[in-house]
This record gives sequence, structure tokens and C-alpha cells, in this order.
Amino acid sequence: MVRIALDVMGGDHGPREVMAGALLALEEYECHLALVGPEEVIATELKAFPKWPMDRTTIVHAPDIVGMAESPSLAFRKKKNSSIQIGLNLVKDGQADAFVSAGNTGAVMAASVLTLGRIEGVERPAIATIMPSTKGPFVMLDMGSTMDCKPQHLVQFAIMGHYFSRLILHTKNPKIALLNVGEEEDKGNQSTLEAYQLLKALPEEFSFAGNIEGKEIIFGKADVVVCDGFVGNSLLKFGEGLVSLFMNFFKTEAKASFLSLLGVLLLKPALKRFMKSFDYQEYGGAPLLGVNGVSMIAHGKSNRRAIKHAIRNGIQTVEQDMVARIAKAVVQS
Amino acid sequence: MVRIALDVMGGDHGPREVMAGALLALEEYECHLALVGPEEVIATELKAFPKWPMDRTTIVHAPDIVGMAESPSLAFRKKKNSSIQIGLNLVKDGQADAFVSAGNTGAVMAASVLTLGRIEGVERPAIATIMPSTKGPFVMLDMGSTMDCKPQHLVQFAIMGHYFSRLILHTKNPKIALLNVGEEEDKGNQSTLEAYQLLKALPEEFSFAGNIEGKEIIFGKADVVVCDGFVGNSLLKFGEGLVSLFMNFFKTEAKASFLSLLGVLLLKPALKRFMKSFDYQEYGGAPLLGVNGVSMIAHGKSNRRAIKHAIRNGIQTVEQDMVARIAKAVVQS
Repeated sequence: MVRIALDVMGGDHGPREVMAGALLALEEYECHLALVGPEEVIATELKAFPKWPMDRTTIVHAPDIVGMAESPSLAFRKKKNSSIQIGLNLVKDGQADAFVSAGNTGAVMAASVLTLGRIEGVERPAIATIMPSTKGPFVMLDMGSTMDCKPQHLVQFAIMGHYFSRLILHTKNPKIALLNVGEEEDKGNQSTLEAYQLLKALPEEFSFAGNIEGKEIIFGKADVVVCDGFVGNSLLKFGEGLVSLFMNFFKTEAKASFLSLLGVLLLKPALKRFMKSFDYQEYGGAPLLGVNGVSMIAHGKSNRRAIKHAIRNGIQTVEQDMVARIAKAVVQS
Repeated sequence: MVRIALDVMGGDHGPREVMAGALLALEEYECHLALVGPEEVIATELKAFPKWPMDRTTIVHAPDIVGMAESPSLAFRKKKNSSIQIGLNLVKDGQADAFVSAGNTGAVMAASVLTLGRIEGVERPAIATIMPSTKGPFVMLDMGSTMDCKPQHLVQFAIMGHYFSRLILHTKNPKIALLNVGEEEDKGNQSTLEAYQLLKALPEEFSFAGNIEGKEIIFGKADVVVCDGFVGNSLLKFGEGLVSLFMNFFKTEAKASFLSLLGVLLLKPALKRFMKSFDYQEYGGAPLLGVNGVSMIAHGKSNRRAIKHAIRNGIQTVEQDMVARIAKAVVQS
């Protein structure tokens, strides 16, 4: 049974929502949860869930709390007893197989790298994000872990993304593409120009499909899209902005007149389906790739469903032995 | 009267659409147009417009044609008599005040830099794009001219963007922001981290407002958004993809059922208004900033309205003496 250490204090919605997600996961998946946080908080929360399966649960006391906007390096140095640090220690010491947190992303990232270390040969970690496309979800990385990428880093992201796509999204022969400003081989900045050549030289199993432009990723032309953390993070946030702009359109129109309200109501079911594909709650968190252990990073806005899915992804990452597979592939490349 | 050299052969819609836009501009603005292209093509086209004001028009023969996907450097070397090259020569030789083209962007950019040269002190040129926000248009640069930016390049883009915002968008005291992965001063890649400090040290008139995240730019929190050409171009194309995805939603729903068709029809007027704000045709082309002369780059998809607006922007850029103002500001900074 996979053992997950769950950061009860992580996320914008507070411990109640995380606990609710944990219960959904316990009900649906064969797993053991270590609830990590201040024990008095956990005890209080457990009272709200009378049917909690305590036989598959342990409580691990972690009195320090890391705020969502706190400095990651400061948190790492000063808060040795935070739920983030103690949860990661459980993984490091072999008492848990994976850590799951919707807490301060920077703090989880920094503490993961510093506590678990990097996989041998992996030079930089990467955040992989599951993104929607018209042909279904694909994975994009790095979404904000490594800001300045050497070509070799991008190649390692491609390899890690390949395994993520196969093991978590169950894609057969995932196609890898390099995010770039044009499809041609001679387009790009120094880093992508060189990375293109290195990616072309990868073994055939990695199916490098060349450059991809930002316009095309939404239409499902690649299963793994590789970019540096600055570009990935900027794109992700810009996309969030555009989606919320679209949603505002419907909200505004619903108030504008009776006829436009009627229009919005008639489209509501379709709109709900459409927006569901943009809903990270569906996909849950993603592992920080490249660290020597499983650390799942969930969105701060995660609701119970997102927490449940982050736990599910953690279980799969462990069961599929992703860390060992990446380690092997990186050594060979 | 401002004299514009117009590339008749540029754009995806062919010479007829460019000519139609030229006529709209001649009717609306006080300007003189040099129509640049193969004279037999221009002669044929002019027959389609019997009321053409020939007193404010000259025809300049340029037999070579640069394809929309042709290599910019090859076009520059081999096609000395293209409409792009001959049009830019007119500006260089003082026979025209500005060049306007919806042709091969890479070719226009390369030929502009090589023919007109850079403004003294400007290290890299930048493409400025007028972008929509909920508070009205703002300018973002660089959108694809300079892929690898040193911090100093970003500072020069900020200065050029400041003048663009004031002189073309008529913004008083434009607020400049640096696109970044977080608002905090210590967020970013090497280039933005250093650029932040340099921007902070600019004279107060440039109103540096700090970092801005991709999510916020759509909500009009800055008048000038600065980034490198790789990031800008990726974001722009990703945005285009998301907008077309959104439009596909309505197209699909209009066909799905009678009720959803009704919903789409009821929202159509509002949707039209909404989409108009994303319509580059409204804004027309933007000058390639940093070159020593006015070269307006319009979208390849420009229709007659976009061509008209590109010509209008060219006239304004000349009348406002933007090149000289940028030159002066860059020397002082």
C-alpha cells in the first residue's frame, strides 16, 4: 500500500478542504495517509469527519506553519518543524513514499530539492503541469522551477516529461516538442537553438517532433512541451488571465439584459463542459521532476477534488517507479 | 504632407486588399503614397479603383517578390528589387518618410535594420505590439525581434515603449512594467533580475511600476509591458491560440442543438464587441522600434482596415518625430 505524507496546512482553503480531499482519496484508493500538521488542528478536523478510516491514517505533529507568501529560503532555514519540512523528512527517511502539498509552491520546491536532493545526473528540477488541449491533456514543463535553462537542461526536461506522459497520462509513444517562436530549425533563442540539435540526437523512442509555436500547443500537436521555467510560468499565468477574461464576459452578459442572460443560460451546460477542460482541479498536482523522491505540488487554490487527484497522482508516480526510470534514462542519455 | 511608401505585394490577402486599404487611407488622411510593387500589377489594380487620387500617388516599380515564408537573409541578399527593399530605400534616401508593409515579417525586419541602420545607442531593435486589456489598449515589446536580451536591452525597450505609448496611444505618463514570474523584486531570470534594478534607476518620468505577471497584463495594470522577444512572441501566439479556441466553442455550439444555437445568436452582438478588442485590424501595424527611420510592420493577415490603420500609425510616428525622440532619450539614459 502506497504511503502518502499529506500537508494538512497547505492551500488557500485551509485544513478543512485538504482533509475533505484526503477522505475522498482514502475512500477511493488503496493508500495510507500520514496527516502532517499541528496535532491539535488535525484532532479538531477529524471530529468533523466521524467515518474517517483511522486504520489507514497516522497523525504526524508539525507545529510550524509556512505562510503562502513566505520566503522559501527563510521558511527552510527557520521553520524546521513545518508540515512541509516534516512531511518531506518522512519521504527522505523512507517512512512515506510520497509527499503531497498545496502549500507555498516556492517553499515546497526549495525544501524538496534541499531535503530529497536531485536525481543523479539531473542538473535542474522541473515543475510539470498537465495542460488542456482540444485533443486531451498534455504535459508542459518547466512551469517555473528553473528560470535560466541551458540547452542540456531542456533535454533533461524532455526526458522527464516523456516518462511523466507515459506513466501519469498513459500516453503511448509521447511526442515531444520544443516551445519556440517558429517551427523551423533555425528559429529561437540561443538555448532553444542548441537544445533543438540535442533533442534531435536523442534515441528514437523519445519521438522528438521538432519546434512548436504557442498557438499550436492548445490544439494537441504534442504530448510533451518543453520550455524554460520563465517562459512556461509566464504562459501559464497569461493563459489563466485570458480564461478568466472569457469567464468575465459571460458574467457581464448575464447581467446586461434579459436576452443575453437567456443566451448565457442556454449555453451554460456546454460552457461547463468547455471550462472543465481548463480546470486544474481535474488533474490535481504534479510531481516536482528531477528530485530524488516523490514530491507532489498542487495548486494553492486546490479544492477537495484537486487534493484527491494530487494524492492519486502521487500513488501512480510511486507505483510506476517514475523516479528510478528517470534516473536510468538520464544516465543513459 | 507625410509621404508613405507602401508595400503593395505584402500580406496574405494579396495586392487587392492592400490597395483597398491604401485608398481608405488616402480618403481619410492627408498623405502621399508611393505604391511599391511590380508596375504591371499596380496598373491592373488601379483599374479596379476608378476614383483613385492620383495627385497624391506615385508608382514605384519593384519587380521582385518576397514570399511570406521566404528566408529573410536570402531575400535580402538575392532580391534587391523587391517591394520591401525598394520601399525601404525610398525612406533611406529621403524620398519617403515611412515604409509600411504587411509582408514577410522576418524579411521586413531584417531589411529594415540592414537598410536604415539602428538609432545610435540602441543596441537591439524591438517589435512593439498594441495589445487589448480590459482598460483599453497597451503596448508590449519586444514581440519577436530580439531573442536573447541583455538587461540593458530590456531597459532600452522600456524607453522606446514609453515614447510609443505617449505618441501613438496618447497615454499621459505611461506606466512601465517588466513581465516577470512574480511581482517581488527578487523574482525572475538573470536578465529580468538585473533589468529590474536598471529600470528602477531610470529618471522618474519613465514611471517604472515594477514587475507584472502574465495574468495581470490583460487587466490593464501597465501601459508598457517589457519582455524579451522570445517570451513576447510565445505569449502572443499562445493568446491567439486561446482566442481561437474560444471562438471554436461558439462555432461548435451553434451547430450542436437548436437551443445552443439560440444561445449563441442571443450573445452574438456582445461577442462581436468583445472580440473586437482582440482584433489587431483595429490597431494596424506598429513601427519596428530602434531603427533609424520609420518602418511599420503590419500583420500578414491585415485586411484593408488594418492596412489603413498601419498607414495612420506611420503618419503619426513621423509627425510625432518618434525616431528623434527615442534617439535623444537613449543617449541621455
